Amino acid sequence: MTLEATKDVPQQSADESFLNIQFLLTGTELMVGDIVDTNSVMLAQSLKDHGVEVTRKVTLGDDFNSLVAEIEHMSRSADVLLINGGLGPTADDLTAEALAAVIGQPLEENTEALAHLEVWCDRRGFNLAGANRKQIVLPTGVKIVANPIGSAVGFSVIHNECHIICTPGVPIELKQMWQQEILPHLMPHLPKKNKVRTVKIHTFGKGESAIQNLFDQYLADWPEAIEIGYRAASPLVDVKLTTRSEQAEALIPIWLPKIETLLGVHALKITTVNANTAGALQQPFTVAEGLVDLLIQHKQTVSTAESCTGGLIASNITRIAGSSAVFEAGYVTYSNRIKSELLQVKPQTLEAHGAVSEAVVIEMAQGALAASGSDWTVSVSGIAGPGGGSEEKPVGTVWLCWGNKTQLKTQCLVYPTNRLNFQRFIANVGMDLIRRELLGVNETPSYFLKKGK
Amino acid sequence: MTLEATKDVPQQSADESFLNIQFLLTGTELMVGDIVDTNSVMLAQSLKDHGVEVTRKVTLGDDFNSLVAEIEHMSRSADVLLINGGLGPTADDLTAEALAAVIGQPLEENTEALAHLEVWCDRRGFNLAGANRKQIVLPTGVKIVANPIGSAVGFSVIHNECHIICTPGVPIELKQMWQQEILPHLMPHLPKKNKVRTVKIHTFGKGESAIQNLFDQYLADWPEAIEIGYRAASPLVDVKLTTRSEQAEALIPIWLPKIETLLGVHALKITTVNANTAGALQQPFTVAEGLVDLLIQHKQTVSTAESCTGGLIASNITRIAGSSAVFEAGYVTYSNRIKSELLQVKPQTLEAHGAVSEAVVIEMAQGALAASGSDWTVSVSGIAGPGGGSEEKPVGTVWLCWGNKTQLKTQCLVYPTNRLNFQRFIANVGMDLIRRELLGVNETPSYFLKKGK
Repeated sequence: MTLEATKDVPQQSADESFLNIQFLLTGTELMVGDIVDTNSVMLAQSLKDHGVEVTRKVTLGDDFNSLVAEIEHMSRSADVLLINGGLGPTADDLTAEALAAVIGQPLEENTEALAHLEVWCDRRGFNLAGANRKQIVLPTGVKIVANPIGSAVGFSVIHNECHIICTPGVPIELKQMWQQEILPHLMPHLPKKNKVRTVKIHTFGKGESAIQNLFDQYLADWPEAIEIGYRAASPLVDVKLTTRSEQAEALIPIWLPKIETLLGVHALKITTVNANTAGALQQPFTVAEGLVDLLIQHKQTVSTAESCTGGLIASNITRIAGSSAVFEAGYVTYSNRIKSELLQVKPQTLEAHGAVSEAVVIEMAQGALAASGSDWTVSVSGIAGPGGGSEEKPVGTVWLCWGNKTQLKTQCLVYPTNRLNFQRFIANVGMDLIRRELLGVNETPSYFLKKGK
Repeated sequence: MTLEATKDVPQQSADESFLNIQFLLTGTELMVGDIVDTNSVMLAQSLKDHGVEVTRKVTLGDDFNSLVAEIEHMSRSADVLLINGGLGPTADDLTAEALAAVIGQPLEENTEALAHLEVWCDRRGFNLAGANRKQIVLPTGVKIVANPIGSAVGFSVIHNECHIICTPGVPIELKQMWQQEILPHLMPHLPKKNKVRTVKIHTFGKGESAIQNLFDQYLADWPEAIEIGYRAASPLVDVKLTTRSEQAEALIPIWLPKIETLLGVHALKITTVNANTAGALQQPFTVAEGLVDLLIQHKQTVSTAESCTGGLIASNITRIAGSSAVFEAGYVTYSNRIKSELLQVKPQTLEAHGAVSEAVVIEMAQGALAASGSDWTVSVSGIAGPGGGSEEKPVGTVWLCWGNKTQLKTQCLVYPTNRLNFQRFIANVGMDLIRRELLGVNETPSYFLKKGK
């Protein structure tokens, strides 16, 4: 795609955030509450990293007349109108048809889109037929925006001096198209680069308000020029420091270390995003990435012995590309019998202490180290709920054991929430505990602290 | 608050979904991607349960002129315009000011709002002072909408024959205000209940366009009164049948079975949502749920032997409450050594065929059945990428083996995509294959079909 100069771009304001970017999100599923809109959030974050705020977002159902009226209306005030959704193969996908009506052009089979679809189908061994063909019927004269992974191409056209860009609703396709095709073309038209800079500190184990209290208490003289924001990316919290001038940016080397000291090992990683970074949309950083990075550095391996997290720790680790170098084996031992057979947990230990006990997680960890030969291991046994709780061991109770052949440590936590949140949080705690050992720190994690202790 | 008859409500259409309801969501945090909008999703679901689809949603940052223009614009087409956010005590909360400008009324301290705030502060032992007083300065002539829990009241006014209702952005306050104050007043003006009914068929293994092709081919005489919609809830696709009258609903028992026949075992489950269902937010149905339900019915158990999916199958199954009754053991065998030690895969098999091979997944499955004593198992070995591919076995190649002690089946798939999507899809395929065995069907899954076969 190409983007010519945008319409009301006064040259003198070249270092302001001037570009009027609007989003039109289409799909009845967005109107009736079937899905939550995360696409526009992703794009807005990316634009924010380049110093631009989206001016306006409109969401409409799959209604032809409403779409036509809205595209026309929005194109009159926007420099860029990004339309998301409605490119699919089904009858309720109306974007191409509506755009054709707005720009007064007929629909036709687009040869470039056809070529893309042929390659796409061929790679997957699909026949190109029927409904899929609808995706290549586009308004005459549009420019194609490549879709690096999906079957539906994007397309753009200039109307009312507004760059209208139509994109697919599937989040992963939108993301790749945005990063690889759209943002690089928008970049030259965005406000002067290098001004807005964001430093993100990815943290695990402290809540948003705990972090804020910490800063209120110890950083009372924080300079106004560095904006602090928080984004909960459960179970992580990102702390964002934004500066909007070179003077402000110069303060970062003074103040960032103070934050690092306060957060200690709860800070997983620090990333800097500036307006020159070619719109890499950042995946939220994960505890698993931190752990895999450290294991690779140390040339060491890990195994997992999971009961209540049911393979989630193994799955989080193996999601990371390159994890095969550091991940040895995962044992998902749900039943007592399997705990004994696979990890040599003694039946009498299970009998005496119950599956959710310090003695059992120790034997699970010993068993995993012995069976896998890994350098490190973590074992988990708890009550994820909703059933299985008791007076003595309520839902949310969990024992963890972690370490190596030289030393194993244990901890009991009570984290009552729903099953999925419990599993996610405890899986992250399990990985974080190994990460802390690799860092050689003795600091007590926040999530071990109880009120009054 | 009170709502008089809405403007373009022809009495004869009293059993249609006629009410034009629009939302205006305000707040810069919504524009820059700091938060995901769930407020409008909650309200849309509630309205959908009463047979009304929201016509349009607009999201704006905290900019006075944009707010004034948008409120005026929207009030011209809407019967009801619900404005959410911007009622707080800080300087960027502009809703009252903007509404005053739109309706041409001055701002004044509202005595009813003051009384509410006094009680609110008193209960909490707060002094009524400073920033909080801003929340009671409202346009002259508005009607107060009580806030059952928060400090900021809502308010409403009729302008351009449109009922404009201003509500707080805090989700829990909005929810209570909606349920206790707003919805009861809207109800008499909403379409007659019990009309709109949605039947959802949750499917796995066929793409959206494949399903539509099937319907186009075999259901050419489909009645217009039943609307068909699709929602890709990757890797599942939901087919939605919506009816808006009792006559249309009466057609469902005739047409739903035809769809069921066409989809065969690709249909996982059918759920019905009707207007009387109190708007519970539905979680997407998963293949894992279908599998766990069947295993519980059959009183049988399953184990998993995973290489490239790295524990994701086990994790998907154990995410389901009650899965402990049917899940025996999960073996995450990433390295060749662990495949041999844990599952007795012969080193010479690995040597001769490579880890991603039919021979290896068979031995993995045999090993899992023997070690776990489970009734069923599924084993997976493939190349998730991005590294590890070759000419002969490109990234995306995967062998699966599934079955029981009597019979094991195998299949090779090639599914080139990114690592995470590959793992998600293949994990679901693995669970689906066992599900199909439990159903006793021999139908070939769509995802096994290649061009020309």
